[in-house]
Amino acid sequence: VKVVALAGGTGAAKFLRGLVDVMPAADLTIVGNTGDDLEMWGLAISPDLDTVAYTLAGLVDEAKGWGVKHDSFSCRDAMAALELPTYFALGDRDLAVHLHRSERLRAGEPLSQVTGDLARRLRLGCRLIPMSDQRVATEIETPGGWLSFQEFFVRERCRPAVLGVRYVGAEQAAPAPGVIEAVLAAERVIICPSNPVSSIGPILAVAPIRRALAATRATVVGVSPIVGRAPVSGPAGKMMEARGVEVSAVGVAELYREWLDALLVDRGDADLAPRIAEHGVRALPTEIIMRDHAAEVELARAVLDVAL
Amino acid sequence: VKVVALAGGTGAAKFLRGLVDVMPAADLTIVGNTGDDLEMWGLAISPDLDTVAYTLAGLVDEAKGWGVKHDSFSCRDAMAALELPTYFALGDRDLAVHLHRSERLRAGEPLSQVTGDLARRLRLGCRLIPMSDQRVATEIETPGGWLSFQEFFVRERCRPAVLGVRYVGAEQAAPAPGVIEAVLAAERVIICPSNPVSSIGPILAVAPIRRALAATRATVVGVSPIVGRAPVSGPAGKMMEARGVEVSAVGVAELYREWLDALLVDRGDADLAPRIAEHGVRALPTEIIMRDHAAEVELARAVLDVAL
Repeated sequence: VKVVALAGGTGAAKFLRGLVDVMPAADLTIVGNTGDDLEMWGLAISPDLDTVAYTLAGLVDEAKGWGVKHDSFSCRDAMAALELPTYFALGDRDLAVHLHRSERLRAGEPLSQVTGDLARRLRLGCRLIPMSDQRVATEIETPGGWLSFQEFFVRERCRPAVLGVRYVGAEQAAPAPGVIEAVLAAERVIICPSNPVSSIGPILAVAPIRRALAATRATVVGVSPIVGRAPVSGPAGKMMEARGVEVSAVGVAELYREWLDALLVDRGDADLAPRIAEHGVRALPTEIIMRDHAAEVELARAVLDVAL
Repeated sequence: VKVVALAGGTGAAKFLRGLVDVMPAADLTIVGNTGDDLEMWGLAISPDLDTVAYTLAGLVDEAKGWGVKHDSFSCRDAMAALELPTYFALGDRDLAVHLHRSERLRAGEPLSQVTGDLARRLRLGCRLIPMSDQRVATEIETPGGWLSFQEFFVRERCRPAVLGVRYVGAEQAAPAPGVIEAVLAAERVIICPSNPVSSIGPILAVAPIRRALAATRATVVGVSPIVGRAPVSGPAGKMMEARGVEVSAVGVAELYREWLDALLVDRGDADLAPRIAEHGVRALPTEIIMRDHAAEVELARAVLDVAL
């Protein structure tokens, strides 16, 4: 079964780690969010692509959910000694990927090609494609003005009120090579348990991807990142409110209503099924919290087993 | 006394560390070689400027003579795991300087400005200026063809025969801002104990610097990097042979004859004084091997004390 997964960062990465345990990695294409890409120390950093890659490669720092496990921070310490900015702390091992990516991007290679090569060097087995080779920048409107996603997320630690979210460049951006073909050829499209506004939102802001989701004959199955009235992690709540939808699995279904077939929701949210159905989406209550790798595998199996 | 020092890497850096102990750092301008600059991992690396800066800042790895002491190599290890090239091993702390320099150079700042700022951040006290803001590339002709300096020095470990040396770009290169003014205003110009062909040679290949040395009223004093018939360290011997001069203090004097007033030579080379005098250079036998910091200081004092 050919599978395409739209993915953000940590939550998606854990889910995908379960998924490659229950299906052949070679049949999986992951389309990753690049809306929160940033430049730091002159390096091109793609946090979501890297979190997925490191997690699938068994290299991720489990405690943080991103970065490389057992990494050192000597370069960051030296930067601080030089009184240079260090708010986004890059580990020494992590730097290797950023250095390599930055060098190749400057040489004119598209991000998709560099990402594919890194995926091979990390022996992921599956395909990992950025949503676009063009820059799409997720920006957050706060009472103090518009912030880049990382300024909001890392520097301001999600504290400001969220008045709006925009995806700068999305209208001009083309899907990266292979994205549309993969979505149209897939038998199953999975929307990973990621922030629907800042992780999946930028992918959907690339119009041809949204149209391909509506056109594909694949069953499109999502996993809610919201349990009850709160996100499993991160600032999805504030952002969904800013987008004018309810902070619940109902709001997730509303955001995806144009093309979503089924949404796995927490067992405790089973009572939301009728309201989710109003958006044309079938709610499937299950265990969606991934407490350990066994839970990741169970959730992945549940998503693959959905039959409508 | 205003002093200008022309400097290569390790030998020069040790000498300069002695020099700032016996004169006010604020009166010292160091003009550094950039002929062996290289790009690695997409970073702009200036080995000689960095060796001088790290040594004066007390950060240098004493055992190697370059790089940062107690540095870690996690990024290099991660590069190797990705099967990326690592022949020029950059330490994690060292990376901070290369990242910062590279970012600012790409933003359009000249190397001299970036180097001056790094010197301030490292609290050197003296001025450190690259010989030129334009690229001058020292290349070594070997039986296998022309190699960049670092290919010859690091990758090939100086093993190939040296058939020739050239300084690509030197004819078009302008001295960095402040170099000519400093040489002309100096009361003493010091040619540090560095490889005369690959460390001082590129500086001299920038014609206005050579003309300023001939024009300055400063006393120009050198320290021989050759003791007897062999360099204190490095491949100076092979390179001097390729340039057609004797591998001895006599050959050093010959290379600098147009503007050198005095040359400090090893006590054991006192018998070379008449032959050095034939080049119009006064030989001053002294202890030129810097076995410890006291010797660095003694040698620096001897250079400042030269009275003709």
